[in-house]
Amino acid sequence: MSQKNKIIEPKVLKGFSDSLPKIEIQKRRIINKLEQLFSSYGFVPIDTPALEYTQVLLGKGGGETDKQIFHFEDNGGREVALRFDLTVPFARFLAANFNELAFPFKRYHINKVWRGEKPQKGRFREFYQCDFDIVGVDSSEADFEILSMMNHSFSKLGIKNFKFHVAHRGLFNAFLTHLDLLDNSVEILRAVDKLRKIGEDKVKEILIEISGDEKKAQLILDYIKYDENETFLQTLSRLSALSGGEVEHTTRMTEIYNYLDKADLSEHFILDPSITRGLDYYTGIVYETFLEDLPNFGSVCSGGRYNNLASLYTKNELPGVGSSIGLDRLLSALVELDSPLLKQSSSSDVIIFNKGSELYPIGTMLSAQLREKGLRVDSYLLNKKLPQQFKYAEKNSIPYGIMLNNETISENTFTLKNLETRETFDHISLEKAVEIIKGN
Amino acid sequence: MSQKNKIIEPKVLKGFSDSLPKIEIQKRRIINKLEQLFSSYGFVPIDTPALEYTQVLLGKGGGETDKQIFHFEDNGGREVALRFDLTVPFARFLAANFNELAFPFKRYHINKVWRGEKPQKGRFREFYQCDFDIVGVDSSEADFEILSMMNHSFSKLGIKNFKFHVAHRGLFNAFLTHLDLLDNSVEILRAVDKLRKIGEDKVKEILIEISGDEKKAQLILDYIKYDENETFLQTLSRLSALSGGEVEHTTRMTEIYNYLDKADLSEHFILDPSITRGLDYYTGIVYETFLEDLPNFGSVCSGGRYNNLASLYTKNELPGVGSSIGLDRLLSALVELDSPLLKQSSSSDVIIFNKGSELYPIGTMLSAQLREKGLRVDSYLLNKKLPQQFKYAEKNSIPYGIMLNNETISENTFTLKNLETRETFDHISLEKAVEIIKGN
Repeated sequence: MSQKNKIIEPKVLKGFSDSLPKIEIQKRRIINKLEQLFSSYGFVPIDTPALEYTQVLLGKGGGETDKQIFHFEDNGGREVALRFDLTVPFARFLAANFNELAFPFKRYHINKVWRGEKPQKGRFREFYQCDFDIVGVDSSEADFEILSMMNHSFSKLGIKNFKFHVAHRGLFNAFLTHLDLLDNSVEILRAVDKLRKIGEDKVKEILIEISGDEKKAQLILDYIKYDENETFLQTLSRLSALSGGEVEHTTRMTEIYNYLDKADLSEHFILDPSITRGLDYYTGIVYETFLEDLPNFGSVCSGGRYNNLASLYTKNELPGVGSSIGLDRLLSALVELDSPLLKQSSSSDVIIFNKGSELYPIGTMLSAQLREKGLRVDSYLLNKKLPQQFKYAEKNSIPYGIMLNNETISENTFTLKNLETRETFDHISLEKAVEIIKGN
Repeated sequence: MSQKNKIIEPKVLKGFSDSLPKIEIQKRRIINKLEQLFSSYGFVPIDTPALEYTQVLLGKGGGETDKQIFHFEDNGGREVALRFDLTVPFARFLAANFNELAFPFKRYHINKVWRGEKPQKGRFREFYQCDFDIVGVDSSEADFEILSMMNHSFSKLGIKNFKFHVAHRGLFNAFLTHLDLLDNSVEILRAVDKLRKIGEDKVKEILIEISGDEKKAQLILDYIKYDENETFLQTLSRLSALSGGEVEHTTRMTEIYNYLDKADLSEHFILDPSITRGLDYYTGIVYETFLEDLPNFGSVCSGGRYNNLASLYTKNELPGVGSSIGLDRLLSALVELDSPLLKQSSSSDVIIFNKGSELYPIGTMLSAQLREKGLRVDSYLLNKKLPQQFKYAEKNSIPYGIMLNNETISENTFTLKNLETRETFDHISLEKAVEIIKGN
């Protein structure tokens, strides 16, 4: 008997957490808004398995991810792993389903990924990613479309003061070619990507080590310096000159800028050559997104153009461009920004208080009618005194309550109470109540 | 070089599958409808980690799930496992977050679970579950609320001819007590639960083995026999008599039936004593849902009342009642039923065809305006001839296309084409186009 009553501690793993209603309501609201937005651009949703063959996910391996991935041998002796991003599974998906898809293929994918990273503030071992990509076309129009969707996403979420920092990987490679350092591009990219984290001096040290040349290291640092007094096109022209003159990438960036300008979006975009993105699959434009009101928060939406993402899995060439929003990080940012989007987290619009089981069927009927009018209606189910019922409503941030009473049922009215102001409306009809509740 | 070009086969694990856009659009539509419905009843969403301590998920263990669970040792040497249902994590969640929650707590949880089951038709190793529960109250009103939400869910999904088969675990236990077989209740429940699968003769054999009494085995079989000529209340009264007379459970079932009847829902509910549910945590009403047009499909929504679900993790008593919809199975059913809900799977309402990059910014502006009117607007991004663009639209089931041309831009009109009927509207304004597209 003592065995049977032994309590198991209900703990979760380090780096994982339960999502309580107030947070989950907000998360679902953000996801719904983004889904609606992506759909309005003709993007379609996909999903892939959470669990895949380890070898498929790691490819040739050797990266940081190898250490962070959750992997194990399943009961059938297969080496399997939980996906650590939505990019690799997407590449695999494109190869596996190539003949089923209509290209250019525009997809979004919002779901969880898992990484055994060291847990720290804002870093979790389980988190949502939200990716959207256009695959099958290499053009400034496709690049622009992703950028304009990023812009639209942030506006739609009610975020103000965001800036997209863009650069071009091809342009940077042209510059490295000019310096005769193209063979070291991956190491240089990774070094430059650390600029914000470790500072200029440390990056210079690493660059000298890579290039064996203090002058070249300095040239790289000059190249990646963002000058806020230059316009987008001035910076572009300076970078082109540093790379030995105009190249096709200069033209591409000019075209993209012109589209942004014509669409009245250019004020949100900065040409910032320090943006390089550490990942080596990018080949064209790259970008990160910063919230000006949270300068130390880091990027909340990043991506770029890759012209051969699925090459591990297929010989079909699949140029693409895409972006990824870190939903949990974005949610943390919205919390810090005290976003109005997160204000409304009531579980219902109105609650029917419990006045005994004889009145319950009347309440049920009333609830059904209110739901048909588009309201969310809770009904209190315990036989408790009214003050305790009010407490429940308060804990759930429910703004209105309805009290039925035997005397007024015959006239089809009831009492409506604004639970915040304590204002009471007696002998009120269904129509009038809906009006008051919606008016709030 | 040859190493670098080696292709990795883009395969997925057995029992897992990619979700292509047509399926994923449908799945998301169903999920959104259910989320809306649950919210309209004041239910709030929660989520729990996909990965938990194995010991927490398996509890005292010993069940079928032990063999099916995906579990492993993580890099920190912890024994961890992927959740195999949303019920056990919910019990753990209730214990862990008891002080944060407002009771009665009404929650829904829609997310994936993983089981290493033998893959077969309609059985996957990764699938969505959709659970909704009311915890903290033991009353006929709470039981009724879950039943009426089940009914509302199926209506809202446009499903016709569904029947909820309900029974009462407490009533069945009273019957077993009467037969002096209560100590064997778990084995008997599991045997009876197999009736549909293995047939009456086999079940009888097992029951004789358990009870050691052919007569008692026959009495059990008589008890669980559903007689379609009886009304709900007649069956209830017969079962009570077989259990030695009326008990509190008879009263509870009568109350629930009366609420269903008053809400005009009783025609969808059948008192079917063969429904026992194999799981031993149920203590009150239990139910399964069958689609009459797919008689061999099995239950698509099941659950019941449990009065001590979280007892493994807490000493707080948490009576509850809930239900679980197997979303992937329901989706398969909807496909087989050729449900109208699945008809609309276009990626967009309208597509702007590509007439060259000079017209692209105009198309962008037009798209933005159409989106503001609530339309989903794709824009074709490759420089291809029109027939190829039509093909893309067709593959994506997009019903309308817009062609811009230089001559009519100044008058703010364009050409709209119904891509199904091939009907063409020239010199059409934005307002008129929206009207036509929405009218469809």
